Amino acid sequence: MGYAASLLYFDDEAPFALRLAELAGLTPHAIEKHRFPDGELKLRLPPALPRRVVLLRSLHNPNEKLIELLLAARTARELGAQHLTLVAPYLAYMRQDMAFQPGEVVSQHIVGQFIASLCDAVITVDPHLHRIARLEQAVPVRQAVVLSGALLLSDWIAQHHTQPFLMGPDRESAQWVAQAAKRHDFDHAVCQKVRHGDQAVDIALPDVDVRGRAVVLLDDVASSGRTVAKAAELLLAAGAASVDVAVTHALFAADAFEVLKAAGVSQVWSTDCIAHHTNAVSVAPAIAEALRNLA
Amino acid sequence: MGYAASLLYFDDEAPFALRLAELAGLTPHAIEKHRFPDGELKLRLPPALPRRVVLLRSLHNPNEKLIELLLAARTARELGAQHLTLVAPYLAYMRQDMAFQPGEVVSQHIVGQFIASLCDAVITVDPHLHRIARLEQAVPVRQAVVLSGALLLSDWIAQHHTQPFLMGPDRESAQWVAQAAKRHDFDHAVCQKVRHGDQAVDIALPDVDVRGRAVVLLDDVASSGRTVAKAAELLLAAGAASVDVAVTHALFAADAFEVLKAAGVSQVWSTDCIAHHTNAVSVAPAIAEALRNLA
Repeated sequence: MGYAASLLYFDDEAPFALRLAELAGLTPHAIEKHRFPDGELKLRLPPALPRRVVLLRSLHNPNEKLIELLLAARTARELGAQHLTLVAPYLAYMRQDMAFQPGEVVSQHIVGQFIASLCDAVITVDPHLHRIARLEQAVPVRQAVVLSGALLLSDWIAQHHTQPFLMGPDRESAQWVAQAAKRHDFDHAVCQKVRHGDQAVDIALPDVDVRGRAVVLLDDVASSGRTVAKAAELLLAAGAASVDVAVTHALFAADAFEVLKAAGVSQVWSTDCIAHHTNAVSVAPAIAEALRNLA
Repeated sequence: MGYAASLLYFDDEAPFALRLAELAGLTPHAIEKHRFPDGELKLRLPPALPRRVVLLRSLHNPNEKLIELLLAARTARELGAQHLTLVAPYLAYMRQDMAFQPGEVVSQHIVGQFIASLCDAVITVDPHLHRIARLEQAVPVRQAVVLSGALLLSDWIAQHHTQPFLMGPDRESAQWVAQAAKRHDFDHAVCQKVRHGDQAVDIALPDVDVRGRAVVLLDDVASSGRTVAKAAELLLAAGAASVDVAVTHALFAADAFEVLKAAGVSQVWSTDCIAHHTNAVSVAPAIAEALRNLA
């Protein structure tokens, strides 16, 4: 980075942090964290910090981590940090981007502004931006860097299948599917969500022939896994030779992985934006490069 | 309040909120709250709000609630609130008011400034201010109102004992013990914490005669209950006729109540700043009065 810079991280992200620090030439410092019985946090940073500080926090299960960010970022400033970069491989609260009913909280704007009030730069991977084009519109920070997990997954898929068919489970996945397909000239399409009445949501396959094809369902995030599992079942019923799943962010609540396997999914691949046993591709080199470009 | 004002609250505080709304002449509105499987919150406020809005949130287990405050307060402004009062009967993060070791996060300042950035006024009860005199120093808001739970507990104690001896479990409790004792001219004193080496902390009774006395241990907060339980055991061994416990904030982590009972404590009394089966005294009338005075 031209001069000494520190990477602050929390213990639960130590393996990723140490890899990133090495690749980016940063000095890693674990933030000491203690949770009191009443739920309050006590954090301790290194006693003095260089001008340039990078704070790593992937924001799945975001609420307590956002308070950690508040406490750590403000204290980093007091301890000498003049330029603070948040590396949040997974950026939370990006999906609620408008009030669908009057009175609804538009958490994307509020959390985005909150994050922007704490740091000078943000680096993230495949944020769920749906109705806006640029991350700065959601997180109005001076430097906002969006990296692609979908392209890394595309490279991974190209190593495992010769002529795969990339499929998005719904329309919101189209941007990532298109990016990933273009990189290696894969066939691609997206499913559509079909609403039956108020609650029941089903999906419909696009009008393409998947018979005998190795299909890979690709999306930015899988949470409950239900939509992807339903798509996998339909694809196999339609004659797909195999269905794999590739997601940037392995949120995977509760039994999601088991639901996918039960639906007949062969392989589940994810990037290490969120640590999970399905991690197949690391975003650390791309983040290290982005950090060098920022400096 | 002179004109229509709304009280926003969360469902888990409904009984207190409805009581407070009635006493203060506010229109209560529950904030709809949904938690997604990935931990993100979705909140919905009433579609339109009056100029003056009161937001109730007692901040035990504070981290997620601070994010709720962020989301609700910012949205309340967008929906019409021009003057926003936070009623936080229990105010979190007030104890970490200095860096005991270099690099430690002084969370009192940071959380205080965060709260102050969201609202115009704060009303709380017995905040744990130790090295500072006024709440505005920790929460730099335009109007900061501190109410006394200790005085309400003193009145309650006066109804149950004729000549009780008020005892503080440690020096930090002295401010509340002194206040409560003065109100009804109770005898009073505080114990001292004694350190044996690095870790072991014991307490020593003050040099007073408690034989045959009804002793009430009084403090702003009980969390693990260990210190108070130890004091109770020593007091009973020293001949106290009975030991009761009175605290403003019943944080009572895990087995705290059982620990107190096992130590020989007769009655455990608390205010309803935090809902708990030991609640004996309500702070709602005092908060309602403070809200009327603010308006």
